[in-house]
Amino acid sequence: MSLPEAVRWRGGRLEVLDQRRLPECVEYLELGGLDDVVAAIATLAVRGAPAIGIAAAYGLVVAMQPLQEAPVDRYLERLKAAAAGIAAARPTAVNLAWAVERAAAAARHAAASGTAHPHAALTAAAEAIHAEDRRQCRAIAAAGRPLIGEGAGVMTHCNAGALAVSELGTATAPMYAAHRDGVRFRAYACETRPLLQGARLTAWELSRAGIDVTVLCDSMAASLMASRAIDLVIVGTDRVTRNGDVVNKVGTLGHAIVARHFGVPFWVACPASSFDAATATGADVPIEQRSPEEVACYAGVRTAPVGVAAINPAFDVTPAALVTGFITDRGLLRPPFEATLAAAFA
Amino acid sequence: MSLPEAVRWRGGRLEVLDQRRLPECVEYLELGGLDDVVAAIATLAVRGAPAIGIAAAYGLVVAMQPLQEAPVDRYLERLKAAAAGIAAARPTAVNLAWAVERAAAAARHAAASGTAHPHAALTAAAEAIHAEDRRQCRAIAAAGRPLIGEGAGVMTHCNAGALAVSELGTATAPMYAAHRDGVRFRAYACETRPLLQGARLTAWELSRAGIDVTVLCDSMAASLMASRAIDLVIVGTDRVTRNGDVVNKVGTLGHAIVARHFGVPFWVACPASSFDAATATGADVPIEQRSPEEVACYAGVRTAPVGVAAINPAFDVTPAALVTGFITDRGLLRPPFEATLAAAFA
Repeated sequence: MSLPEAVRWRGGRLEVLDQRRLPECVEYLELGGLDDVVAAIATLAVRGAPAIGIAAAYGLVVAMQPLQEAPVDRYLERLKAAAAGIAAARPTAVNLAWAVERAAAAARHAAASGTAHPHAALTAAAEAIHAEDRRQCRAIAAAGRPLIGEGAGVMTHCNAGALAVSELGTATAPMYAAHRDGVRFRAYACETRPLLQGARLTAWELSRAGIDVTVLCDSMAASLMASRAIDLVIVGTDRVTRNGDVVNKVGTLGHAIVARHFGVPFWVACPASSFDAATATGADVPIEQRSPEEVACYAGVRTAPVGVAAINPAFDVTPAALVTGFITDRGLLRPPFEATLAAAFA
Repeated sequence: MSLPEAVRWRGGRLEVLDQRRLPECVEYLELGGLDDVVAAIATLAVRGAPAIGIAAAYGLVVAMQPLQEAPVDRYLERLKAAAAGIAAARPTAVNLAWAVERAAAAARHAAASGTAHPHAALTAAAEAIHAEDRRQCRAIAAAGRPLIGEGAGVMTHCNAGALAVSELGTATAPMYAAHRDGVRFRAYACETRPLLQGARLTAWELSRAGIDVTVLCDSMAASLMASRAIDLVIVGTDRVTRNGDVVNKVGTLGHAIVARHFGVPFWVACPASSFDAATATGADVPIEQRSPEEVACYAGVRTAPVGVAAINPAFDVTPAALVTGFITDRGLLRPPFEATLAAAFA
């Protein structure tokens, strides 16, 4: 089973697979400094909440490399500015801020305790975040594997796959595990307008791994569910709030409402780092509004008349009440989510 | 208020506005014979259930023009073949078969009664269908006008506008009437993947008429409704079955389920010709499956990896239970639809 690597770390060099150009072109971008890292995150060259976290932590290492011999005070001062710059690249996913803060805290702690130069600690923290992410994907795969039975139809939205995370992905992890075990099932990838991460990325990585995958327009999910072709939905998430509300790629809310209407189980796969205990509900999460041009144009072709307004929220909020359960590295979590999430991620 | 004409009939010449090229290019195609007419309908140069009916009736006239001096027997024999060819161009909308059969029946009746050459009767029937469609649009406008209040948000899907019908359209007719009356409201046009009739056509004709219109991806409708920006949904339909099930552009079902979830009224605008009393429920309607390439490519740009499967149903079925009411040329119809539709369209 061949899985792509979204983020590569090779002896102090950071490379990301340029996801804007998939599936036509498989090309890695080297991120050589702070500006490169911020641009790669903001323009979605690297995307997917956990992958953004990993790239951001390594990106902080790369941004601080020129100062690795600097006095600790100066190092920490510049680290603060670099961390703030990277954390501000996108507002919605919690993993970005979480990873940057975790790596920076390791550096500050090393400086305070005098155990190591902060840069060594920063690097070790980034590598630990990456290694932990891989372990979490494997744990999510194990937890979700039993949900996919022989002959099942599994629908997903956007890309919460290897490309969005590391290794097995989150929403795709149970699918990869079932495929490895010889289960024959059919994956359905909603194309995910406006940037088509489902068609371009999920369909690409699943088909490359040998999984039977079919693409559909987001608007076709309801008729597919009406035809009983879908046995369960699994999506990823950019942030889960304390009460279990799920912030994920725009379109997720509609799928959850339709799944509930047809009695189709709706699962959300996520690692501990996507859980934001500090935020009470989805209403408290800032929703990134992206450029209307992403809706009005595709690949240089205009899809709406010049001058017409368009909206482009990147995410929506699915209330906890529409979620069947969470597939996490701590196992399957079921309602009441406020309690089960807190217990699992304490 | 400037409204486009989807179908033009000028002294025996039939022209359709080529809707595949809008909004970039406003160009009429002359349809000179049977093959042109079938191709224009099958490839969506002309689309929208009522406009297809009008174009099909005139198309039958054009196809029969070379035989207008022929003996009546030979004329009727060729008419039967031409009518069957045009009626088979697309399977789902009921107006196509209805218009072709109505025009052909007028010709047969004239031949049987000897009152006129069948070609004169065929031409008169096509012109009558067109004139009736314009009257129906005005009646739909009057019926639906009171539903749109000052400050309202009105969402629609696909294009059931002037381009899909004649004059005021169906779903757009109440909007044009409200706009003419000086009501300030905001229209939201769902882009309608895969062929983007909402973004390309509805946004184009509404903005040309001076209506405040905003485009969104189909997947953004749920979050827009969650934000309370939408006060009502109005869509058109390709066929309403005896029980009130609504066959319309794929995506309609999802919007109806989401509208019900948020308590947003969901209205369906249609003329008498879209009502199919001979078909019991939506489950009995053939759903056109179009080429997967429409999903996997847009304007020559691949949107899914080569070789990956895609589905492309052109329509879905919204159960009558999710419909608030019908906006028709016989007024607003409310449940129980089996009774109110039968009474209105008897």
